[in-house]
Amino acid sequence: MDKKLFQHTSAPLRGKGIGVSATALGIADASAQGWSILHEDVSLPAAVLRHEALLHNLEWMRRFTAAYGVHLAPHGKTTMSPELFRLQLQSGAWGITVATAPQAREAWLAGARRILMANQLVGKANMAIVAELLRDAGTELFCLVDSPDNVAALGGYFRPQALRVGVLLEIGAAGGRTGVRDAAQVHAVIAELARWPDAVQLAGVEVYEGVAPDEAGVRAILQHTVTTFQQLHQAGALARRPALVSGAGSAWFDVVAEEFSVLAGDPGIEVVLRPGCYLTHDVGIYRDAAKRIHASNPVARQMGSSLQPALQLWAYVQSRPEPGKAIIALGKRDAAFDAGFPVPALHYRPGTAAPVAAAGHWKITAMMDQHAFLDVGDQDDLRVGDMLCFDISHPCLTFDKWRHLLVVDDAYTVVDAISTQF
Amino acid sequence: MDKKLFQHTSAPLRGKGIGVSATALGIADASAQGWSILHEDVSLPAAVLRHEALLHNLEWMRRFTAAYGVHLAPHGKTTMSPELFRLQLQSGAWGITVATAPQAREAWLAGARRILMANQLVGKANMAIVAELLRDAGTELFCLVDSPDNVAALGGYFRPQALRVGVLLEIGAAGGRTGVRDAAQVHAVIAELARWPDAVQLAGVEVYEGVAPDEAGVRAILQHTVTTFQQLHQAGALARRPALVSGAGSAWFDVVAEEFSVLAGDPGIEVVLRPGCYLTHDVGIYRDAAKRIHASNPVARQMGSSLQPALQLWAYVQSRPEPGKAIIALGKRDAAFDAGFPVPALHYRPGTAAPVAAAGHWKITAMMDQHAFLDVGDQDDLRVGDMLCFDISHPCLTFDKWRHLLVVDDAYTVVDAISTQF
Repeated sequence: MDKKLFQHTSAPLRGKGIGVSATALGIADASAQGWSILHEDVSLPAAVLRHEALLHNLEWMRRFTAAYGVHLAPHGKTTMSPELFRLQLQSGAWGITVATAPQAREAWLAGARRILMANQLVGKANMAIVAELLRDAGTELFCLVDSPDNVAALGGYFRPQALRVGVLLEIGAAGGRTGVRDAAQVHAVIAELARWPDAVQLAGVEVYEGVAPDEAGVRAILQHTVTTFQQLHQAGALARRPALVSGAGSAWFDVVAEEFSVLAGDPGIEVVLRPGCYLTHDVGIYRDAAKRIHASNPVARQMGSSLQPALQLWAYVQSRPEPGKAIIALGKRDAAFDAGFPVPALHYRPGTAAPVAAAGHWKITAMMDQHAFLDVGDQDDLRVGDMLCFDISHPCLTFDKWRHLLVVDDAYTVVDAISTQF
Repeated sequence: MDKKLFQHTSAPLRGKGIGVSATALGIADASAQGWSILHEDVSLPAAVLRHEALLHNLEWMRRFTAAYGVHLAPHGKTTMSPELFRLQLQSGAWGITVATAPQAREAWLAGARRILMANQLVGKANMAIVAELLRDAGTELFCLVDSPDNVAALGGYFRPQALRVGVLLEIGAAGGRTGVRDAAQVHAVIAELARWPDAVQLAGVEVYEGVAPDEAGVRAILQHTVTTFQQLHQAGALARRPALVSGAGSAWFDVVAEEFSVLAGDPGIEVVLRPGCYLTHDVGIYRDAAKRIHASNPVARQMGSSLQPALQLWAYVQSRPEPGKAIIALGKRDAAFDAGFPVPALHYRPGTAAPVAAAGHWKITAMMDQHAFLDVGDQDDLRVGDMLCFDISHPCLTFDKWRHLLVVDDAYTVVDAISTQF
């Protein structure tokens, strides 16, 4: 099987976490180098994507959303990788979700022509970036609105340019993040939209259910979203055909699929889910979510397999200053640390046959910019120069630490590389 | 005065936090665009460096270290900016400090020919990167050692290549990070070094005092470092002339200067301090440090002025969903959040004359990947589309969120830009 998955950008391969080469390489050259993590061909720390797990997750989510008859617009903010965006689009994604105007441009440059900016679009320069994309007649772009002020700003910007931006009314929750809180706010937004039909098109309704504190709260805001959507749809307020309804971060996408499935059969409606972390998954917040999903969601149960952690970090033991402590050359510059520290998965001593499972009691207890503190047993055989492979929690804040990630096979040989464009 | 400070790389200007242009720009083009933050020419969020404050801080540290007769090798891991490295070198820096081999390469590419890698050098690929730099006869590079295993690995790698790497013995503290803990560990390292005189040169002694819990602890480890240095120096164990002694992160550089001043007058000794955050300073951990410094350090008191916060973030209010809450389009993707959240400094409503001071009670209470939650008063006049300028805490973890930072004058007009190479 050809493991060179990606259409590459022309980005030079430069910086940390790549193989050492006597000549200047582009990112497309990585696949031909034969670099092996275990042979120490790569400067550690390095971030790697497990090829098989990545493809498994891609297919898992394709089947899951297909089973519910819903569309997928993966949140691109997670990876911000043109190569991964293309992979997701080739795998049938309806579009790419982003959080900002510069991210929208990156998604467009990677080939997305349906872009869901799951955020308010604010500021002239950000609107100018979006305007540039909208001038391409083949591009649909939707942003969120939750205030008349923002609708007026969008209308005032796009009308003089004879452009029309799609918007989704964002449903919020009291104490939550963005989004309208009550009927009065809905009406105020709808009233302002009526002033700008040529410049701001209400295409549907959106919610980010992740602000709710628990499953009951998640279901409540989703049901409220369905109700609001149906009211607007039946009132003819949604100008796009089919009308859009969108929800789902990476933790509750199954519940969103369930709750929105009442709308999914209607040809006049497109249900769009937008998880971002499924592609790499993790062993922290999203593994916890997957456990809940497999315990409760019938489609996931029927599919048997689950998402697999595909993003790992390799690093060296750099110091063993005290018996129960190892200092690892891996820091806040390399890994997310806001939702649990990296978790040792494998231990490899260069020159030995193969990695072995890391001891279950090895645990990172603190991280600095460029170091991690690993608690180990006083008698454990862990030496300076040994390599550790870590699983991670929170892919988003790990991806943004890397300009390149290496794609590896099961033997941790580099078969490809991807770039990020944060 | 010419505000174009920098020798630029050829990096394309792409991504977030830059001005909108119809044509593809390189980073060297930014100065000619006349972009104004206040006129909304720039996509927010954006990271800006205040030109005058940057130059002030540069000069302040030059004078401070000169007063103590010590050298400066600014820690490059903070900014990882070739433009800023060159500025520091032009301002008289002895060299550039880094934390990893890829960072060492970036420092070298930016022009540094004395590179202090204030970390252990581990792994074949990392050693290969360093070997490439050492083949330039005009380059001196020093890394840290704290174990015989690491010394043996360095010797085994560099001897066959007929290269010699400089090393500093790292002094550690019980319960701390890296570094030797006791005389037995010192002797073990020295004994191993004796096996590799041609390949591993003991050039001096290093300490990172920031692992100590308080000033008494900091002074104790510094004094222990001086004693160890003197013993090794007098024993003829330090092969470089002048011998090196180095300490100082960004919080205790004054105390390091004081404690190491007993060595600074000796022409056979080079004292090298390596703070990294002084160049941009902050309003969090390093402002706290500056307060202590000005209360206790006679040189700093005599200099009168203090370091100034030079790194700021501009962002939009994107939603005002509840009376006491504003949602800001600024997240963990844009700012450090591990040592205090960004602090509102200025409030600007596009179209008005000038920014005003942000209300003192406005406070970020939480951050998500792309959003910040700002507590405001129920009656405060803060609208969707308003701009806020934030000071930050922890420059290191802010810089690494940006591939470009704009340099601005006091009116927040863009006068230049810098790149980062994380």
